[in-house]
Amino acid sequence: MNRLSLNQITTERWSLAEAVRGCAEAGLPAIGLWRDKVAETGTAEAARLVREAGLVVSSLCRGGFLTATGPDERRAALADNLRAIEEAAELGTDTLVLVVGGLPEGSRDLAGARARAADLIGELAPHAGDFGVRLAIEPLHPMFCADRAVISTLGQALDLAAPFPAGQVGVVVDSYHLWWDPDLARQLARAGREQRIAAYQVCDWTTPLPADALLGRGHVGDGHIDFAALTRQVTAAGYTGWVEVEIFNEQVWRTPGAQTLRTLMDRHSTYVEPYLAPSGGSA
Amino acid sequence: MNRLSLNQITTERWSLAEAVRGCAEAGLPAIGLWRDKVAETGTAEAARLVREAGLVVSSLCRGGFLTATGPDERRAALADNLRAIEEAAELGTDTLVLVVGGLPEGSRDLAGARARAADLIGELAPHAGDFGVRLAIEPLHPMFCADRAVISTLGQALDLAAPFPAGQVGVVVDSYHLWWDPDLARQLARAGREQRIAAYQVCDWTTPLPADALLGRGHVGDGHIDFAALTRQVTAAGYTGWVEVEIFNEQVWRTPGAQTLRTLMDRHSTYVEPYLAPSGGSA
Repeated sequence: MNRLSLNQITTERWSLAEAVRGCAEAGLPAIGLWRDKVAETGTAEAARLVREAGLVVSSLCRGGFLTATGPDERRAALADNLRAIEEAAELGTDTLVLVVGGLPEGSRDLAGARARAADLIGELAPHAGDFGVRLAIEPLHPMFCADRAVISTLGQALDLAAPFPAGQVGVVVDSYHLWWDPDLARQLARAGREQRIAAYQVCDWTTPLPADALLGRGHVGDGHIDFAALTRQVTAAGYTGWVEVEIFNEQVWRTPGAQTLRTLMDRHSTYVEPYLAPSGGSA
Repeated sequence: MNRLSLNQITTERWSLAEAVRGCAEAGLPAIGLWRDKVAETGTAEAARLVREAGLVVSSLCRGGFLTATGPDERRAALADNLRAIEEAAELGTDTLVLVVGGLPEGSRDLAGARARAADLIGELAPHAGDFGVRLAIEPLHPMFCADRAVISTLGQALDLAAPFPAGQVGVVVDSYHLWWDPDLARQLARAGREQRIAAYQVCDWTTPLPADALLGRGHVGDGHIDFAALTRQVTAAGYTGWVEVEIFNEQVWRTPGAQTLRTLMDRHSTYVEPYLAPSGGSA
């Protein structure tokens, strides 16, 4: 379990303190934090809780929402992302996940939204570098293109990252968002060559989709994704970081946290861990 | 309205005879038929109704479901698609829409499913050619990858079509499935060069998505898609065929068919028609 991390949205009903305690008791070495939970606790207190529990913060979710039009909205987005960078640094993680945002209300200008996101990432990148934090651009599934993220593929995220030093801007490989992409193997290899993989997040694609589609993610192994193949590709790309389990699912959220942790550790050992070693999973 | 066609799923509560009469009364020149509706009426009778109403059949929906494993399932899929080719010919359309199918129950082998679809298209293509019918591969939105179509992008559909004569295998450009694709402009230009665009289907992407996502499509103009830009690109790719309105939406289905036809004609004249002329929409 030495590469496994709980993204705390998976235990959404737990406070930050409860999630930290839960990970420590279950023997998980790392946790991915969410800004709203950190804000409830206070950043300094959150950092202290994690440190005293002996955990590592694998990432902070999330900055972004960079597609707004208008100078006031742009300034607000910039200020909020600068705060997120500082919070990540204070929490001791080098990874700030960015969800770039969807189309502004009433707009159909996808190209414009993408250009504005690129522009703001350009402003943020050097600040992130100053704080030792890497912006991790997360492509979301194309079904979220209108309302959550106009960056939909790994190739697109890598193009967006390309102008910046790899230490300042990377990408998130999330199984749920990317598994369907016919170009995925090629883009994962490219991400490896360009040293851009900042995070590997896992959960499964289950059907049928619920309304709004946001909460339809399943435990690894409950759906259609081939985690052996995907994990081998991520490993072959040279990724040696955390495997963060991030599940948005009302039923998982209603399950007691300790039970959820047992399930994800069990699934990790079956579906992911054997394929993390450089030559793993050949058996 | 001389390029506009009603895909009959849009008036799902109408029988084939009612849909044909509705188009004729509304002054629509063409209709896209569905095999289940044709079967209810009988193919010869359906052909007669369309002909006597003075309509053109823009396409037949749909063959496909080519990802099955096992020799029996493969034979059954082949036989059904051969029937669909003959039905298309008997109905007087040169376009048979193919939805290739999702992952078989319990399978996570996306590459295998794609390979089987390619293999069966290879078997079907010459038969389609013999009947003067073109197989029109329809990439579906990536959210349908697991359960409906393992072909998700225009580029992927074009790769699949590439080994075959353009007269035997083409692609469907459906706004709903493709609008988000960052590579769309490039692939549309390629589709034009390779003379592969067999159909242009339109409906809008509306949010939030309903459960199962299948029935979440809206009238052109009700959602997030930039039809001016898309239609210009399709036109620049040399496409001069039908614009088929295909809407899966329970609320649209409950609306009286004649009213739905008025709405789609109105939306067509506002959002699509001005951009169909080779130099259109510059005003």
